[in-house]
Amino acid sequence: MGLVAAALLKHVADVAEDRVDWRAMTSRPDLFAVILAGGSGTRFWPASRKKLPKQFLAVGGRRSLIGETAARLGKLVPPERVLVVAGVEHAPLVRKSLPKLPPENVLCEPIGRNTAPCVAWAALEIERRSPGAVHAVFPADHVIGPAPRFRAALEAAADQAVESGALVTFGIRPTFAATGYGYIEQGPEIARRGRSTVHSVQRFVEKPDLARAEQFLAAGRFLWNSGMFVWTTRAILGEMRRLTPDLVRALERDLRPESVAAVYPTLASVSIDVAVLEKAAAVHVLPADFDWSDVGAWPALPEILPRDAHGNCVTGGATLLSEDANNCIAYGKSGELIALLGVDDVIVVRAGNALLVARKDRAQDVKKIVSRLEREGPKFL
Amino acid sequence: MGLVAAALLKHVADVAEDRVDWRAMTSRPDLFAVILAGGSGTRFWPASRKKLPKQFLAVGGRRSLIGETAARLGKLVPPERVLVVAGVEHAPLVRKSLPKLPPENVLCEPIGRNTAPCVAWAALEIERRSPGAVHAVFPADHVIGPAPRFRAALEAAADQAVESGALVTFGIRPTFAATGYGYIEQGPEIARRGRSTVHSVQRFVEKPDLARAEQFLAAGRFLWNSGMFVWTTRAILGEMRRLTPDLVRALERDLRPESVAAVYPTLASVSIDVAVLEKAAAVHVLPADFDWSDVGAWPALPEILPRDAHGNCVTGGATLLSEDANNCIAYGKSGELIALLGVDDVIVVRAGNALLVARKDRAQDVKKIVSRLEREGPKFL
Repeated sequence: MGLVAAALLKHVADVAEDRVDWRAMTSRPDLFAVILAGGSGTRFWPASRKKLPKQFLAVGGRRSLIGETAARLGKLVPPERVLVVAGVEHAPLVRKSLPKLPPENVLCEPIGRNTAPCVAWAALEIERRSPGAVHAVFPADHVIGPAPRFRAALEAAADQAVESGALVTFGIRPTFAATGYGYIEQGPEIARRGRSTVHSVQRFVEKPDLARAEQFLAAGRFLWNSGMFVWTTRAILGEMRRLTPDLVRALERDLRPESVAAVYPTLASVSIDVAVLEKAAAVHVLPADFDWSDVGAWPALPEILPRDAHGNCVTGGATLLSEDANNCIAYGKSGELIALLGVDDVIVVRAGNALLVARKDRAQDVKKIVSRLEREGPKFL
Repeated sequence: MGLVAAALLKHVADVAEDRVDWRAMTSRPDLFAVILAGGSGTRFWPASRKKLPKQFLAVGGRRSLIGETAARLGKLVPPERVLVVAGVEHAPLVRKSLPKLPPENVLCEPIGRNTAPCVAWAALEIERRSPGAVHAVFPADHVIGPAPRFRAALEAAADQAVESGALVTFGIRPTFAATGYGYIEQGPEIARRGRSTVHSVQRFVEKPDLARAEQFLAAGRFLWNSGMFVWTTRAILGEMRRLTPDLVRALERDLRPESVAAVYPTLASVSIDVAVLEKAAAVHVLPADFDWSDVGAWPALPEILPRDAHGNCVTGGATLLSEDANNCIAYGKSGELIALLGVDDVIVVRAGNALLVARKDRAQDVKKIVSRLEREGPKFL
């Protein structure tokens, strides 16, 4: 079956599943979502830039990653119940990517302070608007599908969070001995919710070395920490008041955006995982049964894009023409041709005023190029 | 010594030589030059396009190849004595590349008919304007240097042509067993002129297979046929009247451009080598003592461009940043960065709406890409 036909059938199946899903979805009007859009990595240079981080790129589809993140919530969490936390300099990109989002739903950080302040601010704001709600927290730059299955898992997690009062986290079943993720060791099964099982969390483990990662993979009960969480607003605020009281106190004094902006630079920069999850009284984990990729760098694209018969894939809108080329990754804008002749395992990215040609197994060294450019050619950053 | 320092010293030496050269150069006001700019190959796609053939590109320097070709004539042949034969569709490019060329010095072919009709037309036009002159014929797209040495050789060839009445051709000493050029077998030495020796031509040989090319290289007396000629207008017209009488008769009836344009499509398409040189009564060859490249395809660029410590070179105005990349060739426009990471022996060309990444030893297959585009994506041609 051709790729186009396969994609079409998959779309039809998604739509069919969506209809069923949609009827069930109106049952939780108290569910909010928080999208964390503060990241600004360099691993997707030259497509991602300081002024255009990865979450605003259409890396894997027609929409930007943040656009896909909001869209996959569907009717389960409509735009008026979605908050986005982003750097103030990226607010125009958020508005452009999410035109249906009410402007007051963008929380602008004047400066990055990692995820704990974002989560606290969003929780306080949701509690102010809708006391007693439940909410999910998602990074803006993950690729997830199919959307209906994701929404079913989200609803199950919300049910679990409401009924147990625990902090619920999504775990990803490892497919290889990754050293780039933190791990969650599952404890006993606590509940079954639809297609999902819920486990207690035995412990969180920092990014391991390869030997430990291989042990985790072999043990079978370890999951990748996806950075996606679901909890009642009262549960997360309760734990934050206990574990990071200064943070909550500094923010809740005055939630007007200009007041938060004034206090924000004084907050400690710490992740929600370290500040809260690793020390919280009750954390449950729900192993994701949807497809997930955090699209960490260029070589992750073949996981989320259709490939031609020779393993090549292209995104960004460009046209690919390959002649004796294999397992290449191409990115360029609509109206542009990328022609590959006799090359294997290369990444070719054309964006703005820069072009990158890299061997695929050297993708982690894109940051070397970026740091050289900070000295040698900042106009290309 | 750094590349920049070496280039600077070379430039100083050129300028010094130029001064001496210039004093001697006012001695031949009867010397004209004809630049053949009718080519439209595909081997430099995507930099060269149907509407922008290679001779109009700044492949090896700041000026277009045709601009360099005219500039290296210096004061020896000023613009008023330079004729350019080009396709009518490229006339605007000729005017842009050679702003000092009088407009009436561009002979516009309504359709390509190979080189014999070009040479005949130019010779008739020169004879009309300046009876009894001597003239040289050059392809527009060769890279030659240093210019003073080239001009000294040109003057020697002109002296030889005037004094002997023979057709004089420049031969290039082969540096490898090339199968892409015709060869000239030298006969006995006829004369010495300054740094140059002049030989009779034993025979012209069509492009050989590799075994014969190796024999030619070993024999030592074979030269590449460069397609650059010097002759008195009367000598070439005499031989053409004898060998291609129909061609001369058709053109000389009326040399007004509109009349030539009307008759041009009826002319036989044949090269000057086949129509005349191979059959002429007296042909002499002057082995070039200047550097020469016909820049036949992308892999020829390292012959004519400075390379960095890892053998990479860049042209077209782009900035190159390489990290563990070796022996690569990059082309892009000014203001653009080409970053190479961990790749060896690749050609990276970004021009207009297309980008080519090719393994260097597959450069000859660029034409395959071009012919696929004729069916699959003509807007990228």
